[in-house]
Amino acid sequence: MTDRMKATARACSNIAFIKYWGKADFDHNIPLNDSVSMTLSDAVTTTTVQWDPELKDDVIYLNSERILDARALRISRYLDRIRDQYYRMGARVASVNSFPAGTGIASSASGFAALATAAFAAFGEESPDETEMTRWARRGSGSACRSVQAGFVEWKGGTDDASSYSEQLCGPGHWDLRDLVVVLSRKPKTISSSEGHKIAVRHPFMAARQEELPARILSLKGALATRDVATFGEIVEHEAMEVQAIMMSGRPSALYLQPDTIRLIHHLRAWRDDEGVPVWFTLDAGPNLHVLCEGDVAFEVRERLTIVAPDAEILENRPGPAARIVDDHLL
Amino acid sequence: MTDRMKATARACSNIAFIKYWGKADFDHNIPLNDSVSMTLSDAVTTTTVQWDPELKDDVIYLNSERILDARALRISRYLDRIRDQYYRMGARVASVNSFPAGTGIASSASGFAALATAAFAAFGEESPDETEMTRWARRGSGSACRSVQAGFVEWKGGTDDASSYSEQLCGPGHWDLRDLVVVLSRKPKTISSSEGHKIAVRHPFMAARQEELPARILSLKGALATRDVATFGEIVEHEAMEVQAIMMSGRPSALYLQPDTIRLIHHLRAWRDDEGVPVWFTLDAGPNLHVLCEGDVAFEVRERLTIVAPDAEILENRPGPAARIVDDHLL
Repeated sequence: MTDRMKATARACSNIAFIKYWGKADFDHNIPLNDSVSMTLSDAVTTTTVQWDPELKDDVIYLNSERILDARALRISRYLDRIRDQYYRMGARVASVNSFPAGTGIASSASGFAALATAAFAAFGEESPDETEMTRWARRGSGSACRSVQAGFVEWKGGTDDASSYSEQLCGPGHWDLRDLVVVLSRKPKTISSSEGHKIAVRHPFMAARQEELPARILSLKGALATRDVATFGEIVEHEAMEVQAIMMSGRPSALYLQPDTIRLIHHLRAWRDDEGVPVWFTLDAGPNLHVLCEGDVAFEVRERLTIVAPDAEILENRPGPAARIVDDHLL
Repeated sequence: MTDRMKATARACSNIAFIKYWGKADFDHNIPLNDSVSMTLSDAVTTTTVQWDPELKDDVIYLNSERILDARALRISRYLDRIRDQYYRMGARVASVNSFPAGTGIASSASGFAALATAAFAAFGEESPDETEMTRWARRGSGSACRSVQAGFVEWKGGTDDASSYSEQLCGPGHWDLRDLVVVLSRKPKTISSSEGHKIAVRHPFMAARQEELPARILSLKGALATRDVATFGEIVEHEAMEVQAIMMSGRPSALYLQPDTIRLIHHLRAWRDDEGVPVWFTLDAGPNLHVLCEGDVAFEVRERLTIVAPDAEILENRPGPAARIVDDHLL
């Protein structure tokens, strides 16, 4: 039986165009607002879960190393929620990321999407449907909600566990948008996302942001539907600056921007404003720049980035696939 | 008579701890909010005004060069307001700054405070009183309102021309606070302050900022009264980040921060948080950092700044004197 109780899943991280920043409910990861993202083709987590009735404690490997710290505890607590609804037994979990740690790519997004997908499949019974699977991913890490589906995804923030789930807006084939992640720093953040969410909730600007967002999201979806990259880019870049603005003007101040981040932003804007290169950016809770452009200029943009940031690794992503079961087990 | 109709004034620029960003009335430079500043001892403008009944058009020299551009027009329009109330005659104006152009130190603040002071004195009659002189300076350039008085100054924003004036909070001797201006860039701004004020007024975060400010100003004045540098610094730094946040998340986005600005901010915060160095900063609509500390650590802070920014000029200021008449004419 043990061998049948094993499954491996692969899921992509995602980059948010409209950000998840501020939680309405910390127990269920209910966000203050809806968010919109692209699933990232080349930022992949592969996770094998093997349930074992004879195993008392979970055994967890991350990037081939057994972990016993807070990350392991978080995964076990998460598996408890699944066990509560199915069978109580220990699990062996092994997970690897295709992208280096500390790149500012949300490994918790791809990680919990893959973990949820693998954990249910490993029971060998029918898994929750896709929408319910987005809820399961969200219960592990908010932004994982958007990593279950392919292409372009909207997380309906909702008001409680049932109403907070993701929907696919359009598949990966709809638009050849690229996200060139420029890895400028691998230092850990001084203020964690979790702490950031708390600071955000009490930020005096948050109410005004929430009022603006519904119209902004509607405009973004319109630009996505028509592949209007200029409108899309302008909204996304403004959104990124707004969220960084809230981060850095909070109490305490979280200044994720680094000198190279600012330097590249000025370069990008000069390329766009002075030379007409159709390129925009977004940022997450970290210093690394997500450079956005359409496929037909991606090569040129990459060349330009290589010239101004020769030491930075660049991870190029297209709209990625959904979380899925694969055959190549890690255990 | 002509020789009697000449006067020279000297006035200092100022650095705002609570910022003037957003105008309620563009004709009279009425700000959205009260602001608080320190007059800067070493950022001085000296201006000579010579009224001449035989002169048809104004002749204006800036840093020893005759100017005929928009700056000259602005000065002539300003002199028109004074002439409208006194005598209609041309003026020779010569003005020099002690600090280099483009350092991000507001030369319009010291400039219009000196110009107003000299222009009235040159008539050889009784000048407006000090409060009225702050109004006159403000009519030339909003922040000049705070450059008429010595030490620490509050600009009561008011709602119209009469109610918008400055008051001294305390003299230069009250507190040996230093402002070390680290000149990181001399490039002209891509978005002018005037344009910035317009973007600020329609920024969705501005209402929340205005609601926060009265309590913030009260706390700042309390910290100033007790020379509580830690409380003072925390408020001032938060205020600076908030205004930068509004600038960069506006439409269009005004990103005055440069890579070196961010680099020094991270250094400063590390010195403070990791080594206990009592140092804070503020910023204006530009990339140059105003590093704030008390006199007893100014030497150490200056040494540290020199190590991390060896190429940057540092202009050290103490609380400065009021605008005043001097004898050394430029004409």
